[in-house]
Amino acid sequence: MVLLFKSDPDDTRGWTAELARRLPGVEVRTWPDVGDPADIEFCVGWAFPPGSLRGFPNLKGLQSLGAGVDHVFRDPDLPEALPIARIVDPYMTEDMTQWVMLNVLRFHKQDPDYRRLQAEGRWDELPPPSWRDRRVGVMGLGELGGHALERLRYFGYKLAGWSRTKKRIDRVETFAGEEGLRPFLARTDILVVLLPLTPETEDLLNRERLSRLPKGAFVINAGRGRLLVDEDLIAMLDSGHLGGAALDVFRQEPLAADHAFWKHPKVVITPHVSALTRAETAVPQIVENYRRALAGEPLLHPVDRRRRY
Amino acid sequence: MVLLFKSDPDDTRGWTAELARRLPGVEVRTWPDVGDPADIEFCVGWAFPPGSLRGFPNLKGLQSLGAGVDHVFRDPDLPEALPIARIVDPYMTEDMTQWVMLNVLRFHKQDPDYRRLQAEGRWDELPPPSWRDRRVGVMGLGELGGHALERLRYFGYKLAGWSRTKKRIDRVETFAGEEGLRPFLARTDILVVLLPLTPETEDLLNRERLSRLPKGAFVINAGRGRLLVDEDLIAMLDSGHLGGAALDVFRQEPLAADHAFWKHPKVVITPHVSALTRAETAVPQIVENYRRALAGEPLLHPVDRRRRY
Repeated sequence: MVLLFKSDPDDTRGWTAELARRLPGVEVRTWPDVGDPADIEFCVGWAFPPGSLRGFPNLKGLQSLGAGVDHVFRDPDLPEALPIARIVDPYMTEDMTQWVMLNVLRFHKQDPDYRRLQAEGRWDELPPPSWRDRRVGVMGLGELGGHALERLRYFGYKLAGWSRTKKRIDRVETFAGEEGLRPFLARTDILVVLLPLTPETEDLLNRERLSRLPKGAFVINAGRGRLLVDEDLIAMLDSGHLGGAALDVFRQEPLAADHAFWKHPKVVITPHVSALTRAETAVPQIVENYRRALAGEPLLHPVDRRRRY
Repeated sequence: MVLLFKSDPDDTRGWTAELARRLPGVEVRTWPDVGDPADIEFCVGWAFPPGSLRGFPNLKGLQSLGAGVDHVFRDPDLPEALPIARIVDPYMTEDMTQWVMLNVLRFHKQDPDYRRLQAEGRWDELPPPSWRDRRVGVMGLGELGGHALERLRYFGYKLAGWSRTKKRIDRVETFAGEEGLRPFLARTDILVVLLPLTPETEDLLNRERLSRLPKGAFVINAGRGRLLVDEDLIAMLDSGHLGGAALDVFRQEPLAADHAFWKHPKVVITPHVSALTRAETAVPQIVENYRRALAGEPLLHPVDRRRRY
């Protein structure tokens, strides 16, 4: 009865203590101190190195420590039948929605322009866009995108959503698939990207797609860095076609010190903090999944291997 | 049948055109082109100079162009029996709530710190405060404060409200009067000020009151500049007792070029644009109040002269 935990070294302690507390009788080991690989029955964490899971002959389940599981599928030797779960935590979902709302309001309320005017010491009233006419579009209509749209609805915006397969959401115009992408982007002033990263969504937001957004549109990405082609975003910001971007996720994290995003006047960066997985709210479902994995029962919040999310 | 309009010179035209269109047969004059003072039956606007309204012998009503009417009571010669109305416009209320939400989220999500880290090219994750523990307090529980609290409720914060007289609001801890001020401030991490300016509220937020807020608290003011003592706010920001301020209103507007707020690293300024009165949404109630004033009926959204709001 051994659980193996792997996360960033600096936030391991709280997690392993909480797991040990809630799983009396279970030994919690921390990567890379694996011990005998045959002991490991359940893995919890981020980005186990490719090939490592294959080396645990008695592994019965893998719990991703976040909502996204693209890190799991980077392993070409991922054991075929291994049940995989992701975290779906209402606490974290609310955290994400608040980050999304901050950035939608930032752009809707012309805050970057007002920050610049303040820095210049200028008292200028800008023509204010109306919330009634503001078209916000959300890509990804799962837990996070659905929750963000629910909150956005209270603000009176014109809402749309895009997903791989068609969904119906009250008072939201929904689009789906490749053929829905152009009309969805063409009607979106503020684009919120909450897609999972899969082979189908990688580089989805390239120059051609970004150019479908109306002039002056804003891009908010809290999905994954690889959904967006950095150079294409920068080119569209520099040409004036796009009005700004707020980014929490990047192709490489931490973002390289010489990356153009850092100093770009139209780019707002947060260091992948939009919604942090917290031990206190996430551990109960992990504990339940440990129990289920060992009992051979279906996991909570299972990942579909075919869809990769 | 003459209506006299007065606003900022640069946004007069849209208003007078819209008023004329909706009031066929009524002559709309624009300050200072008053013509014969005996013609004027209804005044609409901002800050008629002290004594000017007294000079219209047939004046039957005054419509303030905004939610606040402190500008009306600066006139010591205000005719005693003149009915006064303010604008209560759901469009404008929503605008204000969005400005409030932007600033609550700005401080809750540590955005000023993340802007500074971006400027320094630093990828640092700050310890994230939990929305479940965040204590937001709203001063002023009228149309604007009540609406802001309704929206804030969706975000899961711990909410409180303060007003002159005790009010009950679902899932909001309410405080009232002088004796409620200390406990209200002591439990508030993010203070939202939406009070009217009256002799009782002027300079309400001075050093003594601001010092009741917990260390690191934030102040958001969209009420009126004179509610807050500028030097006291700056002293509390500089001492580190307060974490930041977002201000849309100022004792003098436009804010003087040499005012310390402009360059203060903890102060976010917008130039009185949190909620603009728009002709298209506000004119219908003005038209109705014109009709009522001439018919001697009670106005919509009347101002209580004793309370001064």
